[in-house]
Amino acid sequence: MFEFSIQAKNGRARTGTFRTPHGDLQTPVFAPVGTQATVKTLTPAQVEETGASLVLANTYHLYLRPGDELIAALGGLHRFMRWPHPMLTDSGGFQVFSLANSRQIDDDGVTFKSHIDGSMHRFTPEKSIRIQENLGADIIMAFDECSDPNNHAYTSIAMQRTHRWAERCLQAKRRADQALFGIVQGGVNPDLRAASAEFIASLGTPGIAIGGLSVGETKAEMHAMLDVVTPLLPEDKPRYLMGVGTPEDLIEGIRRGVDIFDCVLPTRLARHHAAFSPEGRLNLMNAAFARDERPIDPDCDCYTCRTFSRAYLRHLISAKELLAGTLLSIHNVRALIRLVEEIRQQINAGKFEDHAPLLLKRWQNNASRK
Amino acid sequence: MFEFSIQAKNGRARTGTFRTPHGDLQTPVFAPVGTQATVKTLTPAQVEETGASLVLANTYHLYLRPGDELIAALGGLHRFMRWPHPMLTDSGGFQVFSLANSRQIDDDGVTFKSHIDGSMHRFTPEKSIRIQENLGADIIMAFDECSDPNNHAYTSIAMQRTHRWAERCLQAKRRADQALFGIVQGGVNPDLRAASAEFIASLGTPGIAIGGLSVGETKAEMHAMLDVVTPLLPEDKPRYLMGVGTPEDLIEGIRRGVDIFDCVLPTRLARHHAAFSPEGRLNLMNAAFARDERPIDPDCDCYTCRTFSRAYLRHLISAKELLAGTLLSIHNVRALIRLVEEIRQQINAGKFEDHAPLLLKRWQNNASRK
Repeated sequence: MFEFSIQAKNGRARTGTFRTPHGDLQTPVFAPVGTQATVKTLTPAQVEETGASLVLANTYHLYLRPGDELIAALGGLHRFMRWPHPMLTDSGGFQVFSLANSRQIDDDGVTFKSHIDGSMHRFTPEKSIRIQENLGADIIMAFDECSDPNNHAYTSIAMQRTHRWAERCLQAKRRADQALFGIVQGGVNPDLRAASAEFIASLGTPGIAIGGLSVGETKAEMHAMLDVVTPLLPEDKPRYLMGVGTPEDLIEGIRRGVDIFDCVLPTRLARHHAAFSPEGRLNLMNAAFARDERPIDPDCDCYTCRTFSRAYLRHLISAKELLAGTLLSIHNVRALIRLVEEIRQQINAGKFEDHAPLLLKRWQNNASRK
Repeated sequence: MFEFSIQAKNGRARTGTFRTPHGDLQTPVFAPVGTQATVKTLTPAQVEETGASLVLANTYHLYLRPGDELIAALGGLHRFMRWPHPMLTDSGGFQVFSLANSRQIDDDGVTFKSHIDGSMHRFTPEKSIRIQENLGADIIMAFDECSDPNNHAYTSIAMQRTHRWAERCLQAKRRADQALFGIVQGGVNPDLRAASAEFIASLGTPGIAIGGLSVGETKAEMHAMLDVVTPLLPEDKPRYLMGVGTPEDLIEGIRRGVDIFDCVLPTRLARHHAAFSPEGRLNLMNAAFARDERPIDPDCDCYTCRTFSRAYLRHLISAKELLAGTLLSIHNVRALIRLVEEIRQQINAGKFEDHAPLLLKRWQNNASRK
């Protein structure tokens, strides 16, 4: 279980297979996000059809609603949401720090108010693991503290706490059918990142996550941090860059040795009428598409592009029909998965290093992070 | 084209085949409604999977947005929304009278304000046919006036106008690949209904619609009107009861010789968290379903019932996830189509007359009309 075997390398990029109880992941892999036990607006059948092999769900949200104990009583998250393939849950840490109200952090854990009903809750490393064991994903995360990247002193404290919490998570973990990943923190400080990478690597977890990026720093800072971190991680463990997933970020991350990505971007953009395309990000509400008979991307093999014109999608958006969100989500998720599939082929063929600049050019103007 | 052949009869109920340019309809048939060129929240692939063979779209809505001329320029409604099977459009009359503002009726037509942007428009019988020819459905409707069933004097005037408009529609019609149905009106007055049935039958249209029911009258009044109308209609033409489709209404309508039904009810109920079931209409927001592992209906073969628990559906609703509407729509549409499929089998076996009371009992407590 949880063996990671590398198939090919090209520079720091690599392809591999990560074995999980619900099937093998071919890496690099992009995971769409099913925050509340559903990839928004898509049935599991539609998610499967995008080629997705891994889905992420959020511990914070599912703990609050419908409750991890209820999901455990119903046979776990795979069964609850009918996703029979590999799943990953985060630790809840990021949402406690970004969504919950009135949070109070101490060395033992975090007390916070639910963003749904204002009720008080407390997460500790042990509690996060217990919740994630109830949910039952294949890959689970250590409880971590994601700090403000521009505050060095706090970043250092948060990183130290993240390390102690990672040890406690390992102690608390009971299920053998779940892979617990430690999380590298350290903001945008190269020294802290290096120290964190070395510490987390020393824990011997079956995979290692890189957290605290794509949270407000520049692209150059993210790349610099990856350049510090991945060379310090063991070659034979998958690396997961949390919450990152523009086309550009996938290309740049894989170049720097990242294997696993997740992001809400494709489904969030879909709800805002935007679609990835090699012409750049399209906003399909635009009147220019009213009579456009072309699919979003003539080279895309997704259900939406095989079936519908931009004119029809524009009509659905203009008429406020929810089907628009479904069809754009199908395309956007498939677009990222196709990109990663193409990169896997290029790595296997030894051509990714050479091809990456062309890929970056093709996907430019798509969904730059703010 | 548009041949209607009767396969079996059982009392006044019958099964048959109605030939259209986009395929044969096995009648009785229930058509889900795709008001704005989409059956709300469902892809055409999902609509197909419910067993739907006919989809209705609304002339009033599509004329206003995106415009019938745009749809014609893009190859017609079938191509625009990617529904390759038979389609039906209404005349726009009902929506002009129920949705538009400031309508002014005269013998030539109706002037009204768009409910979307307040712009002024005018429908005449000729205009309605021109729009429906641009849309290109297989079955199109004469422009009619649906009156207040409790106002006898107005009902008579509206019926007379509907008859003159039906003649003008027949005159205006140009496309040979569309079947124009005349519409019987007459409110809840047996004499007016009889006169209207005889007049519309005399026009020789390839099918006949029964309008102005399910608009506020009682069930008993609707049944009484059907008892007056269908015996006066030619046996060899399909009869279409417009806008009607609770399980009970389907059973009672088919009993009285109706062949075609459409209704927004299954998709509208879905958006309000309600599902048809032999236990009665279920509201899946109810906390009683929080741990219920059963499907909505264990005997249902739809994707939703084959796949998901009531507990999961209840979670989606409670978490305001749009997938809930999709999954309940799939079930509700399939439930009505399965009911009609079962009735077809019973008619073919000569058992529907005997079985109808059992069917009514099984589907009672489901979606009574107001």
